[in-house]
Amino acid sequence: MFKILRLPFRKLPQLSTFQLFVIFYLMAISIATLVLSMPFFLEDGVTVSFIDTLFTAISAISVTGLTAVPIELTFNTAGYFALAFILQFGGIGIMTLGTTIYLLLGKKIGIRGRQLISVDQNRSTLSGLVKLMLKILRTVLFIELVGMIILSLHYLNYFDTWQEAWLQGFFASVSATTNAGFDITGASLEPFANDYFVQIVNMCLLVSGAIGFPVLMEIEQWLFMRKAERHRFRFSTFAKLTTTTFFLLVLFGAVIFYLLERQHVLADDSFLTAIIHSFFQSITTRNGGLQTLDINQFTPTTLMFFSFLMFVGASPSSVGGGIRTTTFAIVLLAIYHYAKGHTAIKVFKREIAREDVLKAFIVMTTALFLCLLAVLCLSISEPFSNLEITFEVFSAFGTTGLSLGITSDLTVFGKIIIMIMMFVGRIGIFSFLFIIRGKPTKDLYKYPKAKMIIG
Amino acid sequence: MFKILRLPFRKLPQLSTFQLFVIFYLMAISIATLVLSMPFFLEDGVTVSFIDTLFTAISAISVTGLTAVPIELTFNTAGYFALAFILQFGGIGIMTLGTTIYLLLGKKIGIRGRQLISVDQNRSTLSGLVKLMLKILRTVLFIELVGMIILSLHYLNYFDTWQEAWLQGFFASVSATTNAGFDITGASLEPFANDYFVQIVNMCLLVSGAIGFPVLMEIEQWLFMRKAERHRFRFSTFAKLTTTTFFLLVLFGAVIFYLLERQHVLADDSFLTAIIHSFFQSITTRNGGLQTLDINQFTPTTLMFFSFLMFVGASPSSVGGGIRTTTFAIVLLAIYHYAKGHTAIKVFKREIAREDVLKAFIVMTTALFLCLLAVLCLSISEPFSNLEITFEVFSAFGTTGLSLGITSDLTVFGKIIIMIMMFVGRIGIFSFLFIIRGKPTKDLYKYPKAKMIIG
Ligand SMILES: [K+]
Ligand SMILES: [K+]
Repeated sequence: MFKILRLPFRKLPQLSTFQLFVIFYLMAISIATLVLSMPFFLEDGVTVSFIDTLFTAISAISVTGLTAVPIELTFNTAGYFALAFILQFGGIGIMTLGTTIYLLLGKKIGIRGRQLISVDQNRSTLSGLVKLMLKILRTVLFIELVGMIILSLHYLNYFDTWQEAWLQGFFASVSATTNAGFDITGASLEPFANDYFVQIVNMCLLVSGAIGFPVLMEIEQWLFMRKAERHRFRFSTFAKLTTTTFFLLVLFGAVIFYLLERQHVLADDSFLTAIIHSFFQSITTRNGGLQTLDINQFTPTTLMFFSFLMFVGASPSSVGGGIRTTTFAIVLLAIYHYAKGHTAIKVFKREIAREDVLKAFIVMTTALFLCLLAVLCLSISEPFSNLEITFEVFSAFGTTGLSLGITSDLTVFGKIIIMIMMFVGRIGIFSFLFIIRGKPTKDLYKYPKAKMIIG
Repeated sequence: MFKILRLPFRKLPQLSTFQLFVIFYLMAISIATLVLSMPFFLEDGVTVSFIDTLFTAISAISVTGLTAVPIELTFNTAGYFALAFILQFGGIGIMTLGTTIYLLLGKKIGIRGRQLISVDQNRSTLSGLVKLMLKILRTVLFIELVGMIILSLHYLNYFDTWQEAWLQGFFASVSATTNAGFDITGASLEPFANDYFVQIVNMCLLVSGAIGFPVLMEIEQWLFMRKAERHRFRFSTFAKLTTTTFFLLVLFGAVIFYLLERQHVLADDSFLTAIIHSFFQSITTRNGGLQTLDINQFTPTTLMFFSFLMFVGASPSSVGGGIRTTTFAIVLLAIYHYAKGHTAIKVFKREIAREDVLKAFIVMTTALFLCLLAVLCLSISEPFSNLEITFEVFSAFGTTGLSLGITSDLTVFGKIIIMIMMFVGRIGIFSFLFIIRGKPTKDLYKYPKAKMIIG
């Protein structure tokens, strides 16, 4: 009798770190759904269906920003604060959890942990972890605070009351730093499409969120170092690779956008405006999902290209989704070095482990299969064009949140597919794959190697 | 003076096997272009632009079947024979060359050669090679002959003269066996859409060409073995994997097509007709490119799904293109075993080498990047929909030859892109990648391993 009662509890510790991670994530979504369905947070007279509340909750926890209901009309001021709190949890919480998992893994592998908390060398992993999480929280809150003050002061020019300006500044700063892409203006950043200042501040906030937490920590360490010691400091290969890839993607995206759209949406803009618009669009597809232009006006080529950029997404261990920058970089490096016949894959005078190369390919390929499957499912259930559907799916997987405007018109089935994609995009392909992984077992049988013809 | 003259000849042997392979391929295309531009082979009064002749030549050498001009109206009977001869060369020639390369590689690696010419064990690689090539030629010609006799006799019911029936039967058999997808009926196999017999014969011919030459050889060996010895014969793991994948894809494709189209193009068909149509469409996307139904009538979902099937393509070392069945199978197996936490990837009681797993991922990813790039380029230059362009590009890369009818209306730039895709699809991703590979060099520097966060 007691045995039966104790069974689930005895089972719990047998779950893998990844399985627990997914369960915590689902719990967070349930709580967020409960909170957002409270009438206290809704505008008077507004009712939201369960599926749309769930959609908003997943979108907020995954800091995607796709919405099935208009946020600014659905929630009241208290609701805005509740949403900002959830975004905070989604952004910082999962970000630290992301690092936590790597540290926990590192503890097992014995190498990764030490490397990631280089700050806390020679400390036990767990106590280092707590300190690290607090550091992240502190850094992100600091960035948000600075962003809020700058934006709110500037917003005094736009809004009638100082309360409104500070509310908008607060929400905008949180939404940009966590790369959530939610807005309470009703039109994203489009009202500020000609305000360079707002756009540049937002770009800075978006980048700080998406560049990856380990990179932020290394930069912080470098900044607070005595000048005499700086020449001895070395940024990690990981930080170099992810940051280089990040900014190359930003530059590449901006240049291609400029070339594709100079005769279209950028036709009436001055050169400077066109350049700023191009960089903003490129950065927002990294992960932010904020809009300054009406993306429905972009050419089909731009939209396909943006789908690809959103698929790549942000840096690992950041507030962002997608396959992450390092995955993409390692895949490209592996192809190049393989084609050249090199036995080792090198970057920044370091070698990338074969294990990591395989991982990168597995993440990329699994993600592509998933996205393709989602596109096929939606093409059956939804009346929208191939391009609208593809864009929506890649936006969800990249937790980017840009949309050609079909989100609220999706069928319940379609919304469920998009919710799954946001979920997987946020927890990452590994956590998704490792749900089916059991306890490690020894391979009992050894088979001879088969010879294969490939390609 | 003499030194300068000797320079190019002294350089030639320094080319890698793959570079030579690509050069031979380009030479074959040049010759085919010359042949097909001869007025002797054209209908009276017909003129074809250079770009369209080149397009037809590449399409024929790569046995793709995309055409910018209507074959039946452009060429006369002599032209049909010339085309059939080129198809023969494209199908059998490149197929044997494909095997040749593996054998030559095997000679270097020391393992592959022996494995592939298991028939000729203990023989020197080169003499075994010649015998193997003759065997392929003999087998394919035999299949084509049988196909021609069966189809021609049956076509006596359709055509007025026996000459016409035999000409149609000859061309149809060559086109189906080499999976070329060309036709001289002007409407592919649509005139026989209700003729089960023609469709079943064509399906058999398509499968024999696309199933892969090593598999055909093993089946032949098994067939001509004394019955008492058969229980000792073991099909190779390669043959088992590629054949299983091939037929699973056929089954999967047929089932999905049936489900997607039962209410659409198959709506008026009897159950049996619907089943045969489904299997035919599935087999033709493996590589054939023959049509019995108007593919413009298919749902967008079907067309996207078919794009994916064409991308996978046929078995390696066959008349077909795409990433090939084994590549796809190994990628799926690798993802599954990785997710389960297994250290080795096993199939049919054999282990797949880590080297082969990396190869499979590299082929798949490079192919996807190339296709995506082609789609983006075409979406700029062509006025067609995203779906029409995607379908055309994947059909070209898979050397399948199905089209939504945009081929002849492509711009010159668009035709060049499609030609490149057919070319790469046929020579395979490795030959494409290895064009940039020089002589093997030793890694002079060893760098420490970098620690990475991926996904
Ligand atoms: K977002
Ligand atoms: K074909």
